[in-house]
Amino acid sequence: MKKSDVIRNILRDKPSTPRIQFGQAFAPTNIALCKYWGKRDLELNLPINSSLSISLGDKGATTFIAEIESDQDSIVFNEQSIALHSSFGNRLTTFLDLFRPLPTVRYQVITQMNIPVASGLASSACGFAALVLALNHFYHWDLDLTQLSILARLGSGSAARSLWQGFVKWEMGSAKDGMDSHGHVLPIQWPELRVGLLILHTGQKPLSSREAMLRTVQTSHLYSAWPKQVDMDMQSLERALVAKDFNALGRTAENNAMAMHATMMSAWPAIVYSQPATIGAMNQVWELRKEGVSVYFTQDAGPNLKLLFLAENQEKVMAAFPDLEMCEPFG
Amino acid sequence: MKKSDVIRNILRDKPSTPRIQFGQAFAPTNIALCKYWGKRDLELNLPINSSLSISLGDKGATTFIAEIESDQDSIVFNEQSIALHSSFGNRLTTFLDLFRPLPTVRYQVITQMNIPVASGLASSACGFAALVLALNHFYHWDLDLTQLSILARLGSGSAARSLWQGFVKWEMGSAKDGMDSHGHVLPIQWPELRVGLLILHTGQKPLSSREAMLRTVQTSHLYSAWPKQVDMDMQSLERALVAKDFNALGRTAENNAMAMHATMMSAWPAIVYSQPATIGAMNQVWELRKEGVSVYFTQDAGPNLKLLFLAENQEKVMAAFPDLEMCEPFG
Repeated sequence: MKKSDVIRNILRDKPSTPRIQFGQAFAPTNIALCKYWGKRDLELNLPINSSLSISLGDKGATTFIAEIESDQDSIVFNEQSIALHSSFGNRLTTFLDLFRPLPTVRYQVITQMNIPVASGLASSACGFAALVLALNHFYHWDLDLTQLSILARLGSGSAARSLWQGFVKWEMGSAKDGMDSHGHVLPIQWPELRVGLLILHTGQKPLSSREAMLRTVQTSHLYSAWPKQVDMDMQSLERALVAKDFNALGRTAENNAMAMHATMMSAWPAIVYSQPATIGAMNQVWELRKEGVSVYFTQDAGPNLKLLFLAENQEKVMAAFPDLEMCEPFG
Repeated sequence: MKKSDVIRNILRDKPSTPRIQFGQAFAPTNIALCKYWGKRDLELNLPINSSLSISLGDKGATTFIAEIESDQDSIVFNEQSIALHSSFGNRLTTFLDLFRPLPTVRYQVITQMNIPVASGLASSACGFAALVLALNHFYHWDLDLTQLSILARLGSGSAARSLWQGFVKWEMGSAKDGMDSHGHVLPIQWPELRVGLLILHTGQKPLSSREAMLRTVQTSHLYSAWPKQVDMDMQSLERALVAKDFNALGRTAENNAMAMHATMMSAWPAIVYSQPATIGAMNQVWELRKEGVSVYFTQDAGPNLKLLFLAENQEKVMAAFPDLEMCEPFG
């Protein structure tokens, strides 16, 4: 099945002409506590496992979209014009192709993100979620968040979780067309929860998470045990959230991230997103824990860490990591 | 079954009084190309998987043993007297207990190693192999290498492979008493093969490989896929050795080491032997490979790397790693 078939299905009977000058939307970025790692359908971004994330409040992407009189799209990202033939430009225009009411329609897209881009900070998650929300606003589709989550997933898997604040579970689903593979928000508030972004290394990552995922599934023997890991971790996380057991949450999130990186490390060629500074920071987190401070980390497809802790430990964590970028997911 | 039962079985009818003043032996250290990781029997060091190593020629341990008139053993290691209540002293005297002809017999043991100790450089492998060889010499047991491999295994699993030079396979076996779990040498010479020891970090490791192995087996979900990894790797290595296909050898060894560390990384608490410098050195090896130099690494339970390459690339590898300690396994 093609992306275009899914979209035709969802947008059947929906308006295809804008009634406003531009659409506009914000979507938060999200940090997975149980990672999305491996696709069962490359075209539709259908995952091999369910996943669970926390959205980062006001950290994310704001996107404006309008139709323009031009023979090509115009994309502005963080005040920079993006070349349409760049890999980023190409990925975006190809996604927009799926939504043009007529093949000749061209868009102006302006996106502003207030998180450090790439380096595993889930910029594509909030980026595609904001774009889909902006399109929904622009064309007055009036879709529900479940449908928007499916559309966002077609742009980037983890974008399926960026339609909500708070804890979001992306159910892997089982349908061939992926209509049951979307996010939903969990009815849990945890105002004391803090997420700290620890930027250790900027610069382009050596391999996109899309390619890393594919190589891992294709070449890592250990990956065969990943679905079992996820099953256990999803259960542990859901129990920890209900019980507000922060240590269980942190332990599970850290172990799940390490296991994901373990599957990459055992791929061929090996994929190691950690830089020397990443190992140093992990050791620092473990030292802090030994001193009795409940702080855990998670790591995505990049060298940076995201620290998890509660408000009561914020001072101690900030003292150890003065450059930490603090987020209050429920702030 | 107890270690003492195995030893009683092997040493039945063997002399128990020395006819010489001291026993003396050398055993090479060995670097596993397919790692021993996980025990099915903690007492007898029976492994969950077979493994395959290359011995490091004249790098290893030389051990002298004699009976002494004393109420306690005396252990000298690299010209340092070892406290008997230290963990190292205790491990050694407990092992010697298995061999004393009378409970009152006391030993003088003098060991000299010409490899950097601990930090995952297989010092216990050559240490226990040399000790068992020295005992065999001292008491004129006249055991064959297979039997000595079994005895060495009771001291440290990987010591079972340090009884031979060249490529050694440790068959995991299936017998409860472990009498079929021992090394044997493969009939392959590869004079061009080089192993370089890259010391990146000295100092005590945070966790012994014995404890790391146990924790991994007990807590890592990914470990369930390790035996499958080993099956594939053993086949690939044996094919590579027969075909003298160095790239296949290097690829398999590097991937196997990464997979072993992946199982540790996914244990709880995570075990990460890599230090920041380890990640830096891995990146350097990968850069060299991109430049067309066939060099691979393997890593044991420590932060240091062992580089694998052929004589033809020795100059280029030494230029990139000037501090490399070179070994010629068939030199």
